[in-house]
Amino acid sequence: LVRSFSERASTINALRGCIVNDAITLREKISPNYIPVHKSELSHLKWNQQPENIFLTKKPWNDNAREAIIEFINYVTKEHPSINILLDPISSEELGPLVSPHAKLFTHNEPSVITSKTDLIITFGGDGTILHAANYFARNPESVSQGKKAISFQNPSDLNKVGYNYNPSISQVPPVLSFSLGTLGFLLPFPFSSYNEAFTNVINSDAKVLNRMRIKCNKDVIVPSRSPFSSNNSSSFMTEKEAFRPSNLSVSESIDHNNLPLAAAAFHTSSLTSSHERPILAMNDITLHRGRSPHLTRLVISLSNLPLTTCIADGLIVSTPTGSTAYSLSSGGPIIHPSVPCILLNPICPRSLSFRPVVIPVGETIQVHVDEESRDGIDVSVDGIEMGGLRRGEGLTIESVGKEAGIWCVVDSHADWVGGLNGLLGFNSVFEIHK
Amino acid sequence: LVRSFSERASTINALRGCIVNDAITLREKISPNYIPVHKSELSHLKWNQQPENIFLTKKPWNDNAREAIIEFINYVTKEHPSINILLDPISSEELGPLVSPHAKLFTHNEPSVITSKTDLIITFGGDGTILHAANYFARNPESVSQGKKAISFQNPSDLNKVGYNYNPSISQVPPVLSFSLGTLGFLLPFPFSSYNEAFTNVINSDAKVLNRMRIKCNKDVIVPSRSPFSSNNSSSFMTEKEAFRPSNLSVSESIDHNNLPLAAAAFHTSSLTSSHERPILAMNDITLHRGRSPHLTRLVISLSNLPLTTCIADGLIVSTPTGSTAYSLSSGGPIIHPSVPCILLNPICPRSLSFRPVVIPVGETIQVHVDEESRDGIDVSVDGIEMGGLRRGEGLTIESVGKEAGIWCVVDSHADWVGGLNGLLGFNSVFEIHK
Amino acid sequence: LVRSFSERASTINALRGCIVNDAITLREKISPNYIPVHKSELSHLKWNQQPENIFLTKKPWNDNAREAIIEFINYVTKEHPSINILLDPISSEELGPLVSPHAKLFTHNEPSVITSKTDLIITFGGDGTILHAANYFARNPESVSQGKKAISFQNPSDLNKVGYNYNPSISQVPPVLSFSLGTLGFLLPFPFSSYNEAFTNVINSDAKVLNRMRIKCNKDVIVPSRSPFSSNNSSSFMTEKEAFRPSNLSVSESIDHNNLPLAAAAFHTSSLTSSHERPILAMNDITLHRGRSPHLTRLVISLSNLPLTTCIADGLIVSTPTGSTAYSLSSGGPIIHPSVPCILLNPICPRSLSFRPVVIPVGETIQVHVDEESRDGIDVSVDGIEMGGLRRGEGLTIESVGKEAGIWCVVDSHADWVGGLNGLLGFNSVFEIHK
Amino acid sequence: LVRSFSERASTINALRGCIVNDAITLREKISPNYIPVHKSELSHLKWNQQPENIFLTKKPWNDNAREAIIEFINYVTKEHPSINILLDPISSEELGPLVSPHAKLFTHNEPSVITSKTDLIITFGGDGTILHAANYFARNPESVSQGKKAISFQNPSDLNKVGYNYNPSISQVPPVLSFSLGTLGFLLPFPFSSYNEAFTNVINSDAKVLNRMRIKCNKDVIVPSRSPFSSNNSSSFMTEKEAFRPSNLSVSESIDHNNLPLAAAAFHTSSLTSSHERPILAMNDITLHRGRSPHLTRLVISLSNLPLTTCIADGLIVSTPTGSTAYSLSSGGPIIHPSVPCILLNPICPRSLSFRPVVIPVGETIQVHVDEESRDGIDVSVDGIEMGGLRRGEGLTIESVGKEAGIWCVVDSHADWVGGLNGLLGFNSVFEIHK
Ligand SMILES: NC(=O)C1=CN([C@@H]2O[C@H](COP(=O)(O)OP(=O)(O)OC[C@H]3O[C@@H](n4cnc5c(N)ncnc54)[C@H](O)[C@@H]3O)[C@@H](O)[C@H]2O)C=CC1
Ligand SMILES: NC(=O)C1=CN([C@@H]2O[C@H](COP(=O)(O)OP(=O)(O)OC[C@H]3O[C@@H](n4cnc5c(N)ncnc54)[C@H](O)[C@@H]3O)[C@@H](O)[C@H]2O)C=CC1
Ligand SMILES: NC(=O)C1=CN([C@@H]2O[C@H](COP(=O)(O)OP(=O)(O)OC[C@H]3O[C@@H](n4cnc5c(N)ncnc54)[C@H](O)[C@@H]3O)[C@@H](O)[C@H]2O)C=CC1
Ligand SMILES: NC(=O)C1=CN([C@@H]2O[C@H](COP(=O)(O)OP(=O)(O)OC[C@H]3O[C@@H](n4cnc5c(N)ncnc54)[C@H](O)[C@@H]3O)[C@@H](O)[C@H]2O)C=CC1
Repeated sequence: LVRSFSERASTINALRGCIVNDAITLREKISPNYIPVHKSELSHLKWNQQPENIFLTKKPWNDNAREAIIEFINYVTKEHPSINILLDPISSEELGPLVSPHAKLFTHNEPSVITSKTDLIITFGGDGTILHAANYFARNPESVSQGKKAISFQNPSDLNKVGYNYNPSISQVPPVLSFSLGTLGFLLPFPFSSYNEAFTNVINSDAKVLNRMRIKCNKDVIVPSRSPFSSNNSSSFMTEKEAFRPSNLSVSESIDHNNLPLAAAAFHTSSLTSSHERPILAMNDITLHRGRSPHLTRLVISLSNLPLTTCIADGLIVSTPTGSTAYSLSSGGPIIHPSVPCILLNPICPRSLSFRPVVIPVGETIQVHVDEESRDGIDVSVDGIEMGGLRRGEGLTIESVGKEAGIWCVVDSHADWVGGLNGLLGFNSVFEIHK
Repeated sequence: LVRSFSERASTINALRGCIVNDAITLREKISPNYIPVHKSELSHLKWNQQPENIFLTKKPWNDNAREAIIEFINYVTKEHPSINILLDPISSEELGPLVSPHAKLFTHNEPSVITSKTDLIITFGGDGTILHAANYFARNPESVSQGKKAISFQNPSDLNKVGYNYNPSISQVPPVLSFSLGTLGFLLPFPFSSYNEAFTNVINSDAKVLNRMRIKCNKDVIVPSRSPFSSNNSSSFMTEKEAFRPSNLSVSESIDHNNLPLAAAAFHTSSLTSSHERPILAMNDITLHRGRSPHLTRLVISLSNLPLTTCIADGLIVSTPTGSTAYSLSSGGPIIHPSVPCILLNPICPRSLSFRPVVIPVGETIQVHVDEESRDGIDVSVDGIEMGGLRRGEGLTIESVGKEAGIWCVVDSHADWVGGLNGLLGFNSVFEIHK
Repeated sequence: LVRSFSERASTINALRGCIVNDAITLREKISPNYIPVHKSELSHLKWNQQPENIFLTKKPWNDNAREAIIEFINYVTKEHPSINILLDPISSEELGPLVSPHAKLFTHNEPSVITSKTDLIITFGGDGTILHAANYFARNPESVSQGKKAISFQNPSDLNKVGYNYNPSISQVPPVLSFSLGTLGFLLPFPFSSYNEAFTNVINSDAKVLNRMRIKCNKDVIVPSRSPFSSNNSSSFMTEKEAFRPSNLSVSESIDHNNLPLAAAAFHTSSLTSSHERPILAMNDITLHRGRSPHLTRLVISLSNLPLTTCIADGLIVSTPTGSTAYSLSSGGPIIHPSVPCILLNPICPRSLSFRPVVIPVGETIQVHVDEESRDGIDVSVDGIEMGGLRRGEGLTIESVGKEAGIWCVVDSHADWVGGLNGLLGFNSVFEIHK
Repeated sequence: LVRSFSERASTINALRGCIVNDAITLREKISPNYIPVHKSELSHLKWNQQPENIFLTKKPWNDNAREAIIEFINYVTKEHPSINILLDPISSEELGPLVSPHAKLFTHNEPSVITSKTDLIITFGGDGTILHAANYFARNPESVSQGKKAISFQNPSDLNKVGYNYNPSISQVPPVLSFSLGTLGFLLPFPFSSYNEAFTNVINSDAKVLNRMRIKCNKDVIVPSRSPFSSNNSSSFMTEKEAFRPSNLSVSESIDHNNLPLAAAAFHTSSLTSSHERPILAMNDITLHRGRSPHLTRLVISLSNLPLTTCIADGLIVSTPTGSTAYSLSSGGPIIHPSVPCILLNPICPRSLSFRPVVIPVGETIQVHVDEESRDGIDVSVDGIEMGGLRRGEGLTIESVGKEAGIWCVVDSHADWVGGLNGLLGFNSVFEIHK
C-alpha cells in the first residue's frame, strides 16, 4: 500500500517538480535557548547555531493551506537557500510536483527520522494543525540521548521551579511558528501574509515565544478500593460485552485525515498490564466521554491520592490553560491565561447542581477511573483525537509535565492573548455594540 | 423465539403460581375525566365507571422492584378482587409463578391489545420506568376510534386553549400512578409503603393528577435553503460513508433491557421519504448529540420557519418542562415547573460564549436539521432511548402536543414539586447547612 | 415650585411656539380590541372608533429624542390634523416653544387626567422610556369605572384563560407604539425613520400587537412562621437602627430625571400596616438587593404558601418573560419568549453552588420576606426604579396580573423577537464569525 | 471616649480577673522559617527560637467565641506559662475580668506596638475573623526595618520565583492558627476541640502551613485616554452631586463591629493625588460594585497596560485563589486551589452574554477605572470591608504581592482543601445522595 521512500521519490521526480531527498542525510536537530523576558511571561528564542531544517505541515484537504505552503516553499527556496524543508511522506508526494524544482525537500518513511532532524516546526492551518504537529512529535520522538541534549534552558535549575514534573523520557518538541489561513485560530498564529517577516525574525533569533504547558496521561488499572465485595466482577472477569471498545478510526483512516500518524496506537495496543507505556501528551485536553452510550458515566476522581468526588456526567475534561478556551470553554469553564501553571478539571453535563470547574496547581496528580458501578465504559480523546476506551475499573493518571516538555510557540507580542479573547471569542461583547 | 401466548400461559400453569389469561377477553379501556382544581395547576381524577384493568410495569432486573410488584399483586388480589392485572408477556412469565394463584393476571403478545384495555398504569421503579411506560403506550396505541372516544375533558373547547396542537392521531395514555423503590425519582412518585392508600384513592376518584405535557417529533428531509448552490452534494448523493448510522441497540436487546418494545422502530425504518410516519412522543426530551463523532456538530435551528441560529456544539436538547430537571439541568438549564406551557431549547457544550437556554411558547414549531457543512451526522435519543441517527441535510420537526396527549400523573399534593426540588436536587443547598 | 397649568401655558404662549391646551377638555379615552391572530402569539389591534388622543413621551436629556419628538409632532400636525397630542407638563413646557404653532398640544398637572384621555402611547427613546411610560400609567390610573369600560377583549371569557389573576383595580394601559433612536432597545421598538408608516398603520387598525405580561407586588409584614419562639424580636419591636431605609431618590429628583412622577410614593408612605395599598406593577422585574449593605441578605421564599427556599445572596430578581432579557439575563438566567405565561425567579450571586433559575406558572403567588436573622434590610426596585426598602420581617407578595393588565406593544412582525435575540443580544455568536 | 491603656488596665484590675500588661514591654516579634515540603504545596513551619508572644482575636458578639477564647487563655496560662497573650484593647477589657488571674495578658492602644510584638496569630471564629486579623496586621505594620528582618525564607531567591512582585514596604504577617466554633469556615480552621494538640504542635515546630497569596490595590486617577474631548467634564470638574461617596461605616462603628480598626482610613483620606499611599491588601478579594446606584456601572479594565474590556455590570470581583470560594463563587466563578499563582477576574451580573471568569498569572497588573461615561461612581470593598468609593475617572491598580507578604496559615494536612470542597461547599453533591 505505502510505497517505500525511494519508489516515491523517483515517481515524483519522473513527473515534474522537485526531487524529494532522504531526510536521513540531514544533520541532527539543534535546539534554541529560551531566555525569559523581564516582567513578561514570554521568552526570547535564541539560536546558538543557524537553524537549517524546518518541518512544514498543513491542514489536510484545504486549498488555501496547499496554496500557502507552496508559496512558502518557493519563498524559502529563493530567499533562504540554505534551509532544508522536511515534509511527511504523503505531503512530500502531494507537494513535490507543485513547487519550485530548486526546493530542497526532504522526507522519510520513519517519522522519528524526521523528528530527530527538525530544528523548527511551521504549520499552515488552524488550531488543529498545531495540535496535530505537536502530537506527531510527541508520538515519534528522536532517541533519548537526543532528547537529553535538547534541553537547553538558560538555567537548568529553572526547569522544575514551578512544580512541573521533570520527565526525561519526554523529548523536547522544536519551537512552532504557525500561520493561519482565513480560518483564524485561537492559538495565536501569525497571519499568512506576514510570513516573510515572521520567518526571518525567527531564524535570526529575533522572536518571542510562549511556553504552552502540556499534560500527560498514563492508563492504569486502579484496584477498586471502595467496594471490597465487588471483586467477583472485577475487570479481569469482564465479559466480551463489556470489553474495550476500540476507536472507530482505523490507523489508515487517521493518516488520510491528518496526513500524520496518530498517537492512538499507544492506547489501541494497551492491555490490562499497560501501565508502564510511554505517556500520551496533550496540549489542549484529555477528555473522557460516554460517547454513544446513552447512560451517564460514573468517574471516580482523586487528587494526588485523595478522593475528590465521583463525577456522574456525560464526561470530564482535564485541560491545560491552553485548552481552557477549547472544549472546556464550551462546557462552561473559565478562561485561563496560558502562563498560569495549573490544570483545569471540568465536567461535561454533570448530574449535579453543584459541580464547578476546579483549577489545581501543577504538581498535583489527577487519577480518574471508571467506577465499577458505571453502566458502560468510556471513550478517551486527547486534543480531539480518539484514543480508544476505558472499561469499568480502568483509569487514567494525568499530570503536568515540565516546562521543557511544553510547546514553545512563536508569538507576535504580549498583546496577542488579550486580542484573541476579544477578537476571536467575542469575549464580553456588550449588547450595545449591536446597535 | 417468542412463544405464542397459549404456549406461554400453559407453561406457567404447569409450574405453579397463577394462570395468566388472555387480555383480549377484557372489556375495552375506560378513561377518567380530569376536572381542574380551582386556583391550582392540578386536576381531580374522576372515573365515570369503576376502573377494572390496571397495567403494571417495573424496573427490569431489580430485586426491590420485583418484590414490590409481587406484594402489590397479592394485595390487589386480596383487597380488590374485581381488578384485572395486565402485564407485558415477559413480566407475566417472570411474575406469574411468584404471585398468589388467585391473582387475575392478563397479557397478550400484541401490545396494542394491552394498551386498548388499560384503564390505569402503575409503575414500580424510578423515573425511567415511568418514561418507558409512557413510551410503550405512545408506541402501541389502541385503534383511532378508541383514541377519539378517550378524550373526555370536562369542556372540549379547553383542549387547545393554551395553544397546544391538537392531534387526533395521538391517543390518550391512561393515568399513571407511580411508586418509587428506594431510588427516589424526580417525577413525583409515591413511596411504595403508601400503596394501599394511594391505589384505593385513585380507584375511588379521590386523587389529584398533574398533566405532563409531551412534545412530538417527525423526521424531515429539509431542503437546505441557505446555500442554493450546494444541491450537488445534497443528501440524495450521500455516499455510504456518510450514511445513516443505526442505533446500536437492536430490538431484542431493548426488550431485554426494558421489558417493553421500544419506539425505536419508527426511526430505524425511516428512509428519506419518511416524513409522514407516526410521530414519536417525548415526556422528557429529544436530544441530538454528536455521539462518538469527535467533531462538533452543526445544527440549524428555526422557530416556526424563522431561522433562529446555527448551533455548533456537542448537541441540542429540546425538552418539556418535565424534562427541565433531566438532561437539560445537567447542561445548565433552568428548572421549569411542569405546568408552564413551554418548550426549552438548550445546547450541549456550544462553541459560543453567548448561547443561553431559550424558553419558547407551546404552539411554536422547532425545526432542527444537520447542516450540510457538518462533518458528521448525529444521534437522536428520545427520553434517553436511542432512536437512530440523522445524516447531513436531515432534520426533525418538533412541537408540543395538546393537553389530551400529555401524561396524567397521580400526585400527592401541590407541595410535591417544591419538595422534590429541595429534597432530590439539593436545590440551593446553602453552605451553612454543611456545618 | 411647580406652577399651575394656566401659568405654564401662558408663559409658553408668551414666548413663541404653540399654545398648550388643557387636557381636561378632551374626550375620554377609547380602547381598541385585540383580536388573536391564528397560529401566532400576536393579536390584531382594531379600533372601533378613530383614535384621537396620543400621549408622547421621550428619553429625558437626550438630543436625539428631543429632535425626533419635535419632528413627529410636526408630522402629525401636518398629516393627521385631527389628532390631539398629550404631553406631561414638563415636556409640554420644553417642547411647546419648539414645535409648529399649529400643533394641538395638551397637558394637565394631574397625571390621572392625562391617563384618562389617552388612546395610544408613543415613546421616543430606549427600553427605559417604554418602562417609564408603562409605570406612569400604572401609577396614575383613570377612575375605576373607566378601567372597567376599557376591557374590550373579543371574548371576555378569554381574559383569565391561562391562569392570570384578574384584578379589576388595575386599569388597562393604552397600546404602546415605540420608536428607537440610535440606541436600539430589546423591547422591539420601530426605527424612528419608519414613523410615518408605523403610525398610520396603527391608527388605521392595520397593526399587530404583543401582550407583555406584568407582575404586581404588594408589601406585606409576614408573621414569621418558622421560629415560634422568635416573637419577642418581631418587626413590631424593631429599633431605629434596623428601620426602613428610604430611597435616596426624592420625588422631585425623580421627576427631574424621568419627566414622569414615580410609583415610589406607594412604597415611601408604606407603614407596617400598609398591606392593602394599590399594588405596584412591573413590566420587567421586581428586584430585592442588599444595595450598599456589605452583608449577604437572607430572603425566605414561598410559592403559594409552600416554603421554597431561603436565598442567601446579594438579592433576588422576580421577572416577567419580558424581563428575562434584562437584569435576569445578566444574572445568568434563561431567555424566555414574552408569550410564555410564567414568572422567573433568579437569585443574584447566591451563596450556594446549587441555585438555578426557577420558572413557575402564572397563577402561583410568590412570597419573599427578609429573614429575621438577616443582618440588614434590603432595597426594592421595580423596572429599575428604586422603591424604598424592606426591613427584617417585612416582605413582598408578587403575582402575575391578567392579560388585560398587560402592556400591548405594537410590533412589526413575529420575526422581531428572534431578530432581537440575534442582533441585539449577540445570542450564540459563534467564534468563527469573528474571523 | 476611648480611655488610655493605664486607665483601662487599672479598671480591670479593680474589678476581678487578671491584670492586663503593657505590650511595649515584650520582646520584638520573631518569625519562623517556612521550609517547602517535598512534592507538596505546603511548608513546614520551623521556629529558630521559641515563640512567646501570641495574639488572640475572636468573632465579636459571639458567645461561643468568647467562651472558647477564655478556655484557651486559661489553658495556655496553665500548660504554657511562658507564653504572653496579646489582645487588642477592647478585647482585653472584655476578657480580662473573665479569665484566670494568672493569665499573662498584654495590650496597647497603638496597634503597631501589638503587631511588632506578635510571633503567632490565633483566631477564634469564622472566615471573617481570619480576614479581619490579616487586615489588622496589614494595616498596622511594625517598622520597615522589622519587616525586612522578618523575611526568613529558606532560600531568599525563592521569594519571587513564580513571578510575584516583591514589595519591601509590605511587612510579613505572623503565621495564623485558626479555630472554628460551630460555624465552620472554608479557610481550613481547626475544630476548637483540638486546640491543645494543634497549638502544641505549632509552637514545637511540628506543623504545616499553606501560603495564601494576597493582592494589593492602589487608588489611581487614570487620565482617560479614550475620549480626548471629554476633558471638560473630567474628574476635577465634578460637582458635589457626583462626588466621592464616603463609606457609611464610621471608624468607631467599625471598631464596635470588628474589635479591630479598619484599613478604611487609607481610602477615606484619599484625594485625587493619593496615588502614592500605602497599598491595601486583600486575602480574598477586591470588589467594585454599583452599591445603591440603580445604574449599571462601566468599568474599563486593562491588563498590564493593554486594554482588556469594558465591563458594563453590577460590578467586578478581583480575587485571589483563596477568594475564589468567596464572593466570586457566588458570581459563578471557578474553584481555584490556593496554591495556584494567579488572579481571578469575575464580573457581577455583566450586561453581556459572553463574559467569562478570566484567570491571569501573578505578575500581571490589573487596572480598573470607572469610565467617564458611567452614570455613577462605585463602591470599593476589600475582603468584605467597605473602603469608600471611586468617582468617574478614578480607578484602582491591582497586583499580586510576593509570597513573603502572603498569609501563612497552619493547616492540618494536604487533605483539608479537598475536604472543605466536599464538606463545606457541598461540591458536586449528586442527586442520588438525596434519596
Ligand atoms: N463541544 C466542543 O466544544 C468540543 C470541542 N473539542 C475541542 O477540539 C479540540 C481539537 O481541535 P480540532 O482538532 O481543531 O477539532 P475541531 O476541528 O473539531 O475544532 C474544534 C474548534 O476548537 C478550536 N480550538 C482548538 N483548540 C483551541 C484552543 N486551545 N483555544 C481555542 N479554540 C481552540 C478550533 O479552532 C476549532 O474551531 C479538542 O482539543 C477539544 O478541546 C472537541 C470536541 C467537542
Ligand atoms: N448527562 C445527563 O444528565 C444525561 C441525562 N439523560 C437523561 O436521562 C433521561 C432518561 O432517564 P433514564 O431512562 O432513567 O436514564 P438513566 O438511567 O441514564 O438516568 C438518568 C437520571 O435522570 C433522572 N431523571 C430522568 N428523568 C428525570 C426528570 N424528568 N427529572 C429529574 N430527573 C430525571 C433519573 O432518575 C436518573 O437519575 C433522558 O430523558 C435524559 O433527560 C440522558 C443522558 C445524559
Ligand atoms: N446588572 C444589570 O444587568 C442590571 C440591569 N437592570 C435592568 O434595567 C432595567 C431598567 O432599564 P433602564 O431604566 O433602561 O435602566 P438602565 O438605563 O440602567 O439600562 C439597563 C439596560 O437594560 C436594557 N433593558 C431594559 N429592559 C430590557 C429588556 N426587557 N430586555 C432587554 N434589555 C433591556 C436597556 O436597554 C439598557 O441597556 C431593570 O428593569 C433591570 O432589569 C437594572 C440594574 C442592574
Ligand atoms: N454574594 C456574596 O456571596 C458576597 C460575598 N462576600 C464575601 O464575603 C467576604 C467577607 O467575609 P465575611 O467578613 O465573613 O463576610 P460575611 O459575614 O458577609 O460572610 C460571607 C460568607 O463567606 C464565607 N467566606 C469568607 N471567605 C471565604 C472564602 N475564602 N472561601 C469560602 N467562604 C468564605 C464566610 O464564611 C461567610 O459564610 C468577602 O471577601 C466576599 O468575598 C461579600 C459580599 C457578597
